[in-house]
Amino acid sequence: MRMVAVMLALLAPCLAQSTQEKTQIEVDVLAVMARQAAAWNRGDIAGYMDGYWRSEALVFASGDQVTRGWQPTLDRYKKSYDTKAKMGQLTFSDTEVIVLSKDIAVVVGSWSLAREKDNPKGKFTVIFRRMKEGWRIIHDHTS
Amino acid sequence: MRMVAVMLALLAPCLAQSTQEKTQIEVDVLAVMARQAAAWNRGDIAGYMDGYWRSEALVFASGDQVTRGWQPTLDRYKKSYDTKAKMGQLTFSDTEVIVLSKDIAVVVGSWSLAREKDNPKGKFTVIFRRMKEGWRIIHDHTS
Repeated sequence: MRMVAVMLALLAPCLAQSTQEKTQIEVDVLAVMARQAAAWNRGDIAGYMDGYWRSEALVFASGDQVTRGWQPTLDRYKKSYDTKAKMGQLTFSDTEVIVLSKDIAVVVGSWSLAREKDNPKGKFTVIFRRMKEGWRIIHDHTS
Repeated sequence: MRMVAVMLALLAPCLAQSTQEKTQIEVDVLAVMARQAAAWNRGDIAGYMDGYWRSEALVFASGDQVTRGWQPTLDRYKKSYDTKAKMGQLTFSDTEVIVLSKDIAVVVGSWSLAREKDNPKGKFTVIFRRMKEGWRIIHDHTS
């Protein structure tokens, strides 16, 4: 029976998540996004980028452009938002978390920037994956 | 030892996919998209929609709009593309499949419509999930 217990312990992570586990995943991924918004709103783009997978395999799609890799994505943000005025105040809203497995979750929602002269906004889909370092965005599609 | 064999058989689907399994998933999801494009190009929107999860939980994000549910997504397509001329010829290109698990894959790529008067195009991210009926898109973000 000890063997069975060991095998069941190995199987456990594969089983369907309980509601409690799903709620924990929702809390965890939304906490990453809250930290991202807080970093953005103090003008800290690198801190914002902490929410993304630090990998060349990161995929960031925005409008008609696809950027690959964490560093090129950071560079793109730094180029587009080179002043605190351009960054404005970022708000995520209407967020919905779809837990696909114990390691993968999708967040769909709206983003908006409150700036002095305008208020750009749109929709995003981000795919989170659980890493050793915590939940990180491996794919972002923003429109 | 029979018990161990049974438990290993149960564990198998949870283990990391082999290259061969990943390639098969790539082939399978791209085949769904090829069928979608073929349906679209003969003016069959319902056939195109066969690639999507037939559920109220389907999420379809395009530009600044999010549509939820298979039927509302079909209705939206039928309204936007009410003639064969408007549908044009759909091509998917630059497709990259990212296999996240044995049941979940993401396809990133470009879409374009060849029409008499214009040639609209953009990027898409679709999340496929393996269902009883085969691989289906559960989430689409198009820009």
